[in-house]
Amino acid sequence: MILTVTLNTALDITYRVRSLRPHASHRVSEVVERPGGKGVNVARVLAALGHEVTVTGFAGGATGEVVRDRLSAVPGLTDALVPVAGATRRTIAVADELSGDTTQLNEPGPAIEPAEWGGFLDRYEELVAGASAVALCGSLPPGVPVGAYASLVRTARSAGVPVLLDTSGEPLRRGVAARPDIIKPNADELAELTGSHEPLRATQDARRRGARTVVASLGAQGLLALTPEGDWRAVPPAREHGNPTGAGDSAVAGLLSGLVHRLPWPDRLTSAVALSAATVRAPAAGDFDRVAYEKLLARVSVTAA
Amino acid sequence: MILTVTLNTALDITYRVRSLRPHASHRVSEVVERPGGKGVNVARVLAALGHEVTVTGFAGGATGEVVRDRLSAVPGLTDALVPVAGATRRTIAVADELSGDTTQLNEPGPAIEPAEWGGFLDRYEELVAGASAVALCGSLPPGVPVGAYASLVRTARSAGVPVLLDTSGEPLRRGVAARPDIIKPNADELAELTGSHEPLRATQDARRRGARTVVASLGAQGLLALTPEGDWRAVPPAREHGNPTGAGDSAVAGLLSGLVHRLPWPDRLTSAVALSAATVRAPAAGDFDRVAYEKLLARVSVTAA
Repeated sequence: MILTVTLNTALDITYRVRSLRPHASHRVSEVVERPGGKGVNVARVLAALGHEVTVTGFAGGATGEVVRDRLSAVPGLTDALVPVAGATRRTIAVADELSGDTTQLNEPGPAIEPAEWGGFLDRYEELVAGASAVALCGSLPPGVPVGAYASLVRTARSAGVPVLLDTSGEPLRRGVAARPDIIKPNADELAELTGSHEPLRATQDARRRGARTVVASLGAQGLLALTPEGDWRAVPPAREHGNPTGAGDSAVAGLLSGLVHRLPWPDRLTSAVALSAATVRAPAAGDFDRVAYEKLLARVSVTAA
Repeated sequence: MILTVTLNTALDITYRVRSLRPHASHRVSEVVERPGGKGVNVARVLAALGHEVTVTGFAGGATGEVVRDRLSAVPGLTDALVPVAGATRRTIAVADELSGDTTQLNEPGPAIEPAEWGGFLDRYEELVAGASAVALCGSLPPGVPVGAYASLVRTARSAGVPVLLDTSGEPLRRGVAARPDIIKPNADELAELTGSHEPLRATQDARRRGARTVVASLGAQGLLALTPEGDWRAVPPAREHGNPTGAGDSAVAGLLSGLVHRLPWPDRLTSAVALSAATVRAPAAGDFDRVAYEKLLARVSVTAA
């Protein structure tokens, strides 16, 4: 079982409007809801690839119930979310029919009480004991200590379970120092962590800070991976046009899938890049186009960095 | 008991953001949720004025549960909403800190099945039998026949219960033909109904179409009422600055309160104008400022039209 942790789960809502104009009133013509938060997205892709996956983190309120209800319908996915008194946040993506662009509104998430955080730590320790890999994903809701990911990394390492960390800002800085097996920053997160906007230099610096492997996701330039087995660049055959939402989460799912299948690093990176590109190509945000994925697997180029 | 009908109830959500920019990502700093839909707003004001009020219409899904849960906490208000399979719509008001302006996103509402509509008609007939007045408020959700309000007006008239209709477009046009006791269109609704942008002429025309009394709400110009007892203009002492959301619903509550207390028309109009102005003045959308309301009662001017 692969365990994904999403401390700030979300109900992701997409609204279709003709054209968003500030200070006007809009009739929403279509409403789509799905469970969200990075670790939830990673879990959905892993389940679609045939893995047994368990989702933990927090869920609460009416929005949390909708999230849990929807997750229970995903084959291969086990809901181990910890109930909290506050309500799971919503994110609203307002998609313009005219421009094709999207405006994003993100709620902050519920305040987590110290007792709820303590309850989560107990549950996490139990779940890690049965996991083949752990992914720690996304932002922290209010009330969770900023060093949360550092604690969760240490627990996984003590249990001998490989752990991937995908977050940003101070939680990433603290988490890296606890020596996770893999981090997957994007270019902005890497620059924020290291102060360098030069991807290779920044990736090297991130590795020196404690991550055993750094996989930097560089958008259309694919992935740059510095690993104990060697350094590679993995690049998709062409720039994909579509919705990049969830492309990074699909890359994380590809890395985890390759890890538990004990694939060599170049194959893991191929899978991650192909999933990421197939996610951009899929019409619904966060889904991946399976036919495109299988075709892309043969067309990703992996070269020594 | 006063009965208010809200076929398209809502969970009204207000987001505070620094400044809404299309195609950007926004962190919401504050989230406020409250039950909404015009008839629900009317009921809340009536309950605050000390009336026993019953709310009916439809509620469903996780959003419907939140609406019902919140309504159950309002003293004097009885929840008689009819459960439906679809989810109660959300409305999102995005309030800009910088400009003070608001951008509105309104979901369409759940599709109502024919059996659900039939179930509502039975419930409505039972409730009308125990009501001293009925208010039919707001838009129709998908699946409800466009002549819905005409049927509901006839049921109330058959039971000898006075009925106020506050809606727009084709549902208003059909509803008026069924001869409601009062309609309360605003200037836009009146122009759409009659084709005339001249308030007095349009109000006279609306009355000829079947309404016993027409109370036109003309924003800062107050109310213009053509009634069987005479014709009046009721004007607030000054233009109020604030949030006009819910001002029309508060005016409806004032008209109903005066109706069941058998006040003469000028007193009903005074109450409606004062409540409306006190709603604009209150900081939270749809609430009214009680101190301002009581002061305004002495300062509304009512003159023969």
